Amino acid sequence: MPLGENMQLEKRSLEELSRALRSRELSSTGLIEKAQANYDRWEPALNVYKTWNGEGARKQAQAVDLLLDSNIDLGPLMGLPVSVKDLFGVPGLPVFAGSDSALPQQYSAAGPVVQSVLSQLGVITGKSHTVEFAFGGLGVNAHWGTPVNPWSADGHRVPGGSSAGAGLSLLQGTALLALGTDTAGSVRVPASFTGQAGLKTTIGRWSGKHIVPLSSSLDTPGILARHVQDLAFAFAAMEAAMGRQAASQIPELELADLRIGVPENFFWDDADASVAEVTDAVLSKLGAKAKAFRRTTLQGCDTAFDVFRAGGLAAPELSQYMQAHFPEKIARLDPVVQLRVAGAQQVSSVEYLRRKAVLQQSGEEGLGVFREFDVLVTPTVAIPPPLMSELQDVEAYGRINMLALRNTVIANLFGWCAITLPIGRDKRGLPVGLQLMGPPNTEERLLAMGLAIEQFIGQGPDILGPVPGLAG
Amino acid sequence: MPLGENMQLEKRSLEELSRALRSRELSSTGLIEKAQANYDRWEPALNVYKTWNGEGARKQAQAVDLLLDSNIDLGPLMGLPVSVKDLFGVPGLPVFAGSDSALPQQYSAAGPVVQSVLSQLGVITGKSHTVEFAFGGLGVNAHWGTPVNPWSADGHRVPGGSSAGAGLSLLQGTALLALGTDTAGSVRVPASFTGQAGLKTTIGRWSGKHIVPLSSSLDTPGILARHVQDLAFAFAAMEAAMGRQAASQIPELELADLRIGVPENFFWDDADASVAEVTDAVLSKLGAKAKAFRRTTLQGCDTAFDVFRAGGLAAPELSQYMQAHFPEKIARLDPVVQLRVAGAQQVSSVEYLRRKAVLQQSGEEGLGVFREFDVLVTPTVAIPPPLMSELQDVEAYGRINMLALRNTVIANLFGWCAITLPIGRDKRGLPVGLQLMGPPNTEERLLAMGLAIEQFIGQGPDILGPVPGLAG
Repeated sequence: MPLGENMQLEKRSLEELSRALRSRELSSTGLIEKAQANYDRWEPALNVYKTWNGEGARKQAQAVDLLLDSNIDLGPLMGLPVSVKDLFGVPGLPVFAGSDSALPQQYSAAGPVVQSVLSQLGVITGKSHTVEFAFGGLGVNAHWGTPVNPWSADGHRVPGGSSAGAGLSLLQGTALLALGTDTAGSVRVPASFTGQAGLKTTIGRWSGKHIVPLSSSLDTPGILARHVQDLAFAFAAMEAAMGRQAASQIPELELADLRIGVPENFFWDDADASVAEVTDAVLSKLGAKAKAFRRTTLQGCDTAFDVFRAGGLAAPELSQYMQAHFPEKIARLDPVVQLRVAGAQQVSSVEYLRRKAVLQQSGEEGLGVFREFDVLVTPTVAIPPPLMSELQDVEAYGRINMLALRNTVIANLFGWCAITLPIGRDKRGLPVGLQLMGPPNTEERLLAMGLAIEQFIGQGPDILGPVPGLAG
Repeated sequence: MPLGENMQLEKRSLEELSRALRSRELSSTGLIEKAQANYDRWEPALNVYKTWNGEGARKQAQAVDLLLDSNIDLGPLMGLPVSVKDLFGVPGLPVFAGSDSALPQQYSAAGPVVQSVLSQLGVITGKSHTVEFAFGGLGVNAHWGTPVNPWSADGHRVPGGSSAGAGLSLLQGTALLALGTDTAGSVRVPASFTGQAGLKTTIGRWSGKHIVPLSSSLDTPGILARHVQDLAFAFAAMEAAMGRQAASQIPELELADLRIGVPENFFWDDADASVAEVTDAVLSKLGAKAKAFRRTTLQGCDTAFDVFRAGGLAAPELSQYMQAHFPEKIARLDPVVQLRVAGAQQVSSVEYLRRKAVLQQSGEEGLGVFREFDVLVTPTVAIPPPLMSELQDVEAYGRINMLALRNTVIANLFGWCAITLPIGRDKRGLPVGLQLMGPPNTEERLLAMGLAIEQFIGQGPDILGPVPGLAG
């Protein structure tokens, strides 16, 4: 099926585009002008960016073209448009972190992840919306409005969060790579809800410096792209820019090499029937081709999720961070964030440390499953993106938010890495994602396995087809 | 001055002994037999060991001699007697961790630090006494009796803690190297109080695995030896056994190369006049020879120490650990430990995280001082080892314990490394130590600076002379 014309910032992969830029068949300026046009056309309907960097991006693209004309190549992402979640510092752009007022200027300093894009002259198109202080999985923001998921045909559905604008920036045609952060699913949920691929890195692999923290124990930077092929390209490019060229080689893997485990506990409870059906159909196809494919049990999920439901580590950690840095913002917090931070003060230090110990033990015990399998596969989110009208009362929001994050948060709580890739649309026409989980610091292998699956089932834009809300 | 004959397990340095063992002029069996004789002679008076490994050590020494006869060399510590604080697991020996009953058998497994001694066939003579769960700086233990500091001429003075038996094992002539742990000063205080040298490593440099934890955030393994020369020799040997040969080279430094800073704030408050006088005299000598020598101010000490006084991180961390692993021991805790653990439950998670943040910031800000100085030098402990009779009531114990740990805990709270070396005896005849502090992971340089100072002022045994309590 052809894509809606509106989405066509580019059909080509990042790798093809990087070649086209270097052959001068394509200009960065041209790409950025098209992104600007898409922004002008679709931003009012979608509400993707807190801060648009139109003028800055245009100048940078001009500079890139001058450099490429002179055969100066600063890296694979050079000249490609990248959106950045508004938790990361980007020099010259304000940071709101989803809150009601800009943070002090020092928050705009670039940390290692943003620097890995800037150092190769990736062009940052703007700061995408986030749930306030990233504390929520649906993408809701009362201060700046909740971005609109254009896959919905029946009203305002959420885009997923907390990287609420990240997936949308790819759909909108204003970026070909999006930086996000993932503490419980904040890269993977919006990727899944918007039909994109997403990578949650292992804690510690990419520095959290100069990213406004939600949970110092669990925050991880990540990326979203249209498909795993782009994700792998961008990951390798960013790792190289961080000085780890050797580690970032993506190995060649085939589906026939993979031993796939499908946890049958936990991840399917209360799943939407249509989401489960789409996922099952893809799993059947994969099962027929994989080296091994078996239902299994992942131990420790319920124990770890109980800790998360009780506020986990993030509620105390964000609460302490806000008291130290933004005490004046606490009373003004978005109600859905207020809800989750409230009560942290009543959590004792001993209980907090108990939670950490329980999570560490669960993660270590869970690793046993990888003796038998190369990868664990689950629905990324067990439900479709909810309608805003379903989230009106705080109790309903809390319940749906927990369910939306349930399948993704396990990788955070266990200290693993994970990716999601789009695999189809449910009966409502909404995108469905497949989550792949692997042990700590196996991003290269995980991306290679995602690539093998993607090569077999097809890339997101081809599978999903045109976006209803971006027609005409 | 000659040493008391009693102390003469050996006068030679570890390096000389390792050569003598290899030339077969000396046997490991001979060393261990002498250690056994010293144990038999002095243990009743000193109470150094919870568990003596006489038979095991004898067999291991025999094995070492057979191997050395066959020219098999497993490393520099081969055949040398080593005492181990009873928090470390040593296969075949029980772990009490200072508590009233042995911990389950799995606690006897060797972690990387003990393994670094065992893998080169260092001979472990036994498990030395510790304050219960290492939570105290004086060396007191109501379950097993407080070891006796033989430098005292006027009654039972404490040996320092929590590695209460570590320094004593060197004095007693039952070990030439002692393993300890240091969370607030638990290597340096007993080293200073018993006239030995001690090294507190940087957090994370040496693994805490299979060491009963007091504070997961601040615990660091360390070593005690008769002088810095032995400390440097053992550090390099253990690092090599941990696979880090390259990093563990001790550089050559001269006193004339050093820029020495002496913080005039904090570390001298409420100092004993005689301790201060001995320290000042040595500092004057050093000042005359150093490249630079200046009084300075170390920022952040009061802020960090306030956190420590309020229970720091250890009270919540030990409390959680005990609840998870030894709930039944809580009611039976030594009163002086009970005192410090009590109330942890009332510390909120947000307060705990605030403490962590304050300490991290203090440590980072404090580092600024090393732009101007290579090393900071202070009295290791501002007071002499107290008499047991001074510690009878809980309030007095608490106050003296805090003062004893005050100068050492800064390096723990700031995340730095530090050593202590003996520099003389106060007017009561009690040993006085000098503390050297350096930035994280600069153990090699710190030891080199300690060596330069020691070469100038003399080695502990020569400076201190015979031990009154080990006479005859």
